[in-house]
Amino acid sequence: MTPSKAAVIGGGVIGAGWVARLIENGVEVAVFDPAPDAHDKLEAVFANAERAYAKLTMAARGGKGEWRLCGTIDEAVAGAQLIIEAVPERLELKRKVYSEIEAAADEGALIASSTSGLLPTDLQAEMAHPARFLVAHPFNPVYLLPLVELVGGEKTASEAIERAKAIFAGMGMHPLHIKKEIDAFVADRLMEAMWREALWLVNDGIASTEEIDDAVRYGFGLRYAQMGIFETFRIAGGEAGMRHFLDQFGPALAWPWTKLMDVPDLNEALVETIASQSDAQSGGHSIRELERIRDDNLIAIMQALKANEWGAGNTLAAYEAKLFDSGAAKSDAVDFSQPVTTLERTVPPDWTDYNNHMNEARYLQCFGDATDAFMRMMGVDADYIATGNSFFTVETHIRHLDEVRVNEPIVALTQLIDAGGKKMHLFHKLFHRDGGLLATGEHLLLHVSLETRSTSEPAAHVAAKLAEVMALHAKLPVPEGIGRAVGQKR
Amino acid sequence: MTPSKAAVIGGGVIGAGWVARLIENGVEVAVFDPAPDAHDKLEAVFANAERAYAKLTMAARGGKGEWRLCGTIDEAVAGAQLIIEAVPERLELKRKVYSEIEAAADEGALIASSTSGLLPTDLQAEMAHPARFLVAHPFNPVYLLPLVELVGGEKTASEAIERAKAIFAGMGMHPLHIKKEIDAFVADRLMEAMWREALWLVNDGIASTEEIDDAVRYGFGLRYAQMGIFETFRIAGGEAGMRHFLDQFGPALAWPWTKLMDVPDLNEALVETIASQSDAQSGGHSIRELERIRDDNLIAIMQALKANEWGAGNTLAAYEAKLFDSGAAKSDAVDFSQPVTTLERTVPPDWTDYNNHMNEARYLQCFGDATDAFMRMMGVDADYIATGNSFFTVETHIRHLDEVRVNEPIVALTQLIDAGGKKMHLFHKLFHRDGGLLATGEHLLLHVSLETRSTSEPAAHVAAKLAEVMALHAKLPVPEGIGRAVGQKR
Repeated sequence: MTPSKAAVIGGGVIGAGWVARLIENGVEVAVFDPAPDAHDKLEAVFANAERAYAKLTMAARGGKGEWRLCGTIDEAVAGAQLIIEAVPERLELKRKVYSEIEAAADEGALIASSTSGLLPTDLQAEMAHPARFLVAHPFNPVYLLPLVELVGGEKTASEAIERAKAIFAGMGMHPLHIKKEIDAFVADRLMEAMWREALWLVNDGIASTEEIDDAVRYGFGLRYAQMGIFETFRIAGGEAGMRHFLDQFGPALAWPWTKLMDVPDLNEALVETIASQSDAQSGGHSIRELERIRDDNLIAIMQALKANEWGAGNTLAAYEAKLFDSGAAKSDAVDFSQPVTTLERTVPPDWTDYNNHMNEARYLQCFGDATDAFMRMMGVDADYIATGNSFFTVETHIRHLDEVRVNEPIVALTQLIDAGGKKMHLFHKLFHRDGGLLATGEHLLLHVSLETRSTSEPAAHVAAKLAEVMALHAKLPVPEGIGRAVGQKR
Repeated sequence: MTPSKAAVIGGGVIGAGWVARLIENGVEVAVFDPAPDAHDKLEAVFANAERAYAKLTMAARGGKGEWRLCGTIDEAVAGAQLIIEAVPERLELKRKVYSEIEAAADEGALIASSTSGLLPTDLQAEMAHPARFLVAHPFNPVYLLPLVELVGGEKTASEAIERAKAIFAGMGMHPLHIKKEIDAFVADRLMEAMWREALWLVNDGIASTEEIDDAVRYGFGLRYAQMGIFETFRIAGGEAGMRHFLDQFGPALAWPWTKLMDVPDLNEALVETIASQSDAQSGGHSIRELERIRDDNLIAIMQALKANEWGAGNTLAAYEAKLFDSGAAKSDAVDFSQPVTTLERTVPPDWTDYNNHMNEARYLQCFGDATDAFMRMMGVDADYIATGNSFFTVETHIRHLDEVRVNEPIVALTQLIDAGGKKMHLFHKLFHRDGGLLATGEHLLLHVSLETRSTSEPAAHVAAKLAEVMALHAKLPVPEGIGRAVGQKR
């Protein structure tokens, strides 16, 4: 589903975010942006995205796509299967860009506008081939937030919407097809409403920008990260459901609705109030710092929801499953005459403790993940586990040899020490990518039936693969540090 | 700061949530609610709260306060230092309740209304002692969400606001003082604005309730769990800041503002549309299930933000620190003639893996936490670590003897095997609370200087405490399974 070549027209925060997501998914991207500092601005977004992707998932990342800046729209769109427009929000400018795109693009290319408010019917009005045009409205940071609103115009083909859905879902996003055109679509409509109200609150001196933000993030903002407006209110209605909620709270809600419906005037005094309150609130962090704090929080929230199999966590899990699958496909090409690479990642910030280094439990998490990766190479993958079979660890020995800190790159190599019958005996070495040995992990696992929770024989193909690797690893030197008890003299 | 006795008038979802948070914090609570099913409804909320608190923090929970239902307001408020009113949103009803409260309450008692919209000046107008009255507006689920809006009326004493701040902060909340009275305060104003817009979107057939909810929770809802409206937009403005954002986006934002300012009529047709769409969206889960999904997600999000030292995570961390402190205070009374209890918790849902049991890495997390708890008993606490000293684990051996599943209660007992000079050799046993041995952990730690990252001698008071416990634990039997290498025959 993922295109091999894409073009992005416009390299601002949104355009650059698109490029970052595309190259992370192996797509070759040509970018057009006439600004003299376009290259630097793109690189700044890519640096944030690289930092975020390094933490986003435990799965090995795929190979990155190449990107290049082009001098013209012609050059950028040539041969692209997906063309994303992210230029300023002026109808005439966008129409002019589409005419240049159509002059050079393949007829089958999908053309998507990132507009946050203009109607696709208006945007596509002058196009020669408007059927392949749609709005794909993403949210900042585009390289992390899953939502993309897809909106077709009167002339958009439903095939184009379906193709876009598949492409964006394949890149870890949650495409939401908005079936009726409306200014600002859905998400921005909701945000605008809140923004309008927030401006009144500042304008009338009810609360400062910081107080308003705190009213969001310590309260309903936590709810909205996982359930939306209606599901949250449904709970408020109790077992009697949504109708009961509307009956009960409808009249009370109607009461504040009747006030403050006018638009606050964004005059110099209000701008000054907001700007100075915002400085007082957030001025202690640079924008770059705020971006990284935001990204770390978004990753942590999505990972938390993944553990709970909910909402944006499910989107991340689906993306991760795809990465695991492509990793598994690659394992056919693994050289088993040497210890095999079973983990490659960086140390995320929440893995550290009060000693300011990776917490001891995370070493076992690394070794456990390395064991899982090795098991997948042996055919003990999700399909096999679904048949009711698995390996359980029964004994573990770890030597913590050196410290490692946040964002450092780490690698695990795994050697099979013994295999046969129900047993699998593994020895992992965890290295800093610079080469320093950080820890060793020695593990005895037994094959079990997940139904009886007792030991059992592995399936023939698993036993055969283990025997094949055992024959090769038997020729490797016995690792230093194996067979130790805690505190034993060397 | 935490009161010893409180009264809650009204046992609905909000009142019951208050009671749950109060008893969790050791407060004795008297409840008045005339409904015949009040007891059952309260118990249902307590069951959710108990389940949530069991997962909320790694710290040992304090002793629970008692609660009881009273037949009259008189009886409920007698002797209470804090009186929370959570009756339906009718001004006359609330005023009548306050007059009954004042007839029986201590003059020094704080009286707080949970109203989500009525003005404190109106509420307190007929009170004999209005200075101790304020609005304390919490958010559902009250036992989990940190935000509580504090709003004083014209006659409210600033001392009452300060007292309320200290009480609610002490119970793990984030009190936000709204300095100017306004209908619906701040958070509900913002939510109302979104709700109004969401009703229009359903009314006009733009999107279903599920599509609207997805537009929230896959996109900006993830942002609002950690930063609010202004800080998020500040980032959008780039290094040029908020003023630039307002200059750049002000005009574009003004455009949709000019539309759809009317109030949608919540007529039978719209109610029916919303109710049936909501059934289609969420009807697969009962309200009880949705509540628990929501609670698990809120806990996971707050824990994730705690790891990032941000927002609601900081509120949780402060609460946890208080629990750790009271745990440490109790350690003076520990009986060191036996292995000591160093961990008591339940297995949270995100600790399980594809084998549907606690993941192997979490065993080491339990042992690591048990080691930390033991170290605190030896004087290696946050203050000691702040002096640049700590212990690092250098070697670990784990026997995984039995499985354990989500929500099961687990306990660790710790025996000191060897201590002296820089060394500390520990043996932990992890039990199911029912008594079954789940795992053993054997650990060698060395005392280090956090400055040089090299081994060093512990401070005299730590060495002395270790020696004292060593003398006692030397008399205990040598634990079975100590000194093993992986795969060694018994």
